[in-house]
Amino acid sequence: MLGVKTMRVLIIGVGNIGKQILKMTHFEKVYAFDKFRKDHIPDIHWLEEFHVPEDVDTVIECASPEAVKEYSSQILKSPVNYLIISTSAFADRVFRESFFEELKVSPAKVFFPSGAIGGLDLLAAVRKNIHRVIIETRKHPKSLGINIEGETTVFEGSVEEAAKLFPRNINIASTVGLIAGFEKVKVIIKADSSLSNNVHIISVISDVGKYEFRIENLPSPENPKTSMVTVYSILKTIESLNSKIVFG
Amino acid sequence: MLGVKTMRVLIIGVGNIGKQILKMTHFEKVYAFDKFRKDHIPDIHWLEEFHVPEDVDTVIECASPEAVKEYSSQILKSPVNYLIISTSAFADRVFRESFFEELKVSPAKVFFPSGAIGGLDLLAAVRKNIHRVIIETRKHPKSLGINIEGETTVFEGSVEEAAKLFPRNINIASTVGLIAGFEKVKVIIKADSSLSNNVHIISVISDVGKYEFRIENLPSPENPKTSMVTVYSILKTIESLNSKIVFG
Repeated sequence: MLGVKTMRVLIIGVGNIGKQILKMTHFEKVYAFDKFRKDHIPDIHWLEEFHVPEDVDTVIECASPEAVKEYSSQILKSPVNYLIISTSAFADRVFRESFFEELKVSPAKVFFPSGAIGGLDLLAAVRKNIHRVIIETRKHPKSLGINIEGETTVFEGSVEEAAKLFPRNINIASTVGLIAGFEKVKVIIKADSSLSNNVHIISVISDVGKYEFRIENLPSPENPKTSMVTVYSILKTIESLNSKIVFG
Repeated sequence: MLGVKTMRVLIIGVGNIGKQILKMTHFEKVYAFDKFRKDHIPDIHWLEEFHVPEDVDTVIECASPEAVKEYSSQILKSPVNYLIISTSAFADRVFRESFFEELKVSPAKVFFPSGAIGGLDLLAAVRKNIHRVIIETRKHPKSLGINIEGETTVFEGSVEEAAKLFPRNINIASTVGLIAGFEKVKVIIKADSSLSNNVHIISVISDVGKYEFRIENLPSPENPKTSMVTVYSILKTIESLNSKIVFG
């Protein structure tokens, strides 16, 4: 249980991730907005219409890329910390450019937690020196809706192209694109029947070094489609706002 | 050039890393302390005796583990952001425990930049679920002062043991130890004559996933013993204090 009793938060999207965050934290006050459900959760103030209540200091988006696109303009008008998980919204260049234009005059501070991966600390540090990032995601063929034995490349291309074909699967590539520049990122998706878990391999070529991050997350027991790592990365970012110690 | 014109900093240690930081930033005011040199650098206020001037908001240590041990108590009495690079100081359990005891009542906020590596974001997120971290560092035999062909294991043991034998080489292991717990970290040092650059391989076994980070930094052109990545990681942390966007 993360005690952040001075924080007043608005959670957008109370699905698996949002529920886990609420279970594992103790905020002073929690507002919640979800277009599709309003489950009974103790001590939650459900919003009927989307807005950022005046006493909120932190907004946590764990809903969908559509929610990021729909509500960011309103959120950026408020002096809040804004944590964004559904970064695939930013694979849309038009939205991306308007978001960062609005951010210039916004009183908000935006946080992109690491989500399902790691190494954003290093990527952000060397971002001006990056030549190329390759993000290879390997999944069991069943997760990709195909039926093969062995290994095959399902997709190879830009983040923008991947976003059209696999809209629910490119938060990682989008976050990396936001750091390194979308034009430097290549996405590879492979089906591999030998895997029991999804594997992400992020390879970085830069002026100052070569890096490879191999990430194999175990599925969350309560929802096999997500991993607890995403929840923990949000908690880490929330904690860093309040903690006396910050890593990375 | 990173413009952080509202910051008033104290830099401890003005060697290769400190000089690079000064070259690449524009602070409002810079105090500097270095036991061993006081090179002429424009617009720097050299301190004769160590203290934290009252108008300083950020202290950047890039000196040595000895400096961390000697000055941290004084720094922790001030309401500053305190960036620590020479984390090998924390391989000393007695110092470590007294530091974190003092931090409890300190008005300071402590930052551990990623230094020469990456993935601290993920490590910090899953830290309560980590079983074991192995940090394998591979260097050319010459860098380890030995003369062999091929590959051989030079050291295998705890961070504390490594700190005694390789006191200048365990910042990475110490930073990881601070996150995961020193008792969970195993250090392996290998000589490998096939390498042209140092390679660090960080393997993490946790309840929520398995991770491997492979890091090969190129030596800095001005000082082959350090890499520019460490400098960039400090700049990234400084920037995150002022930026509207924070990653990881």
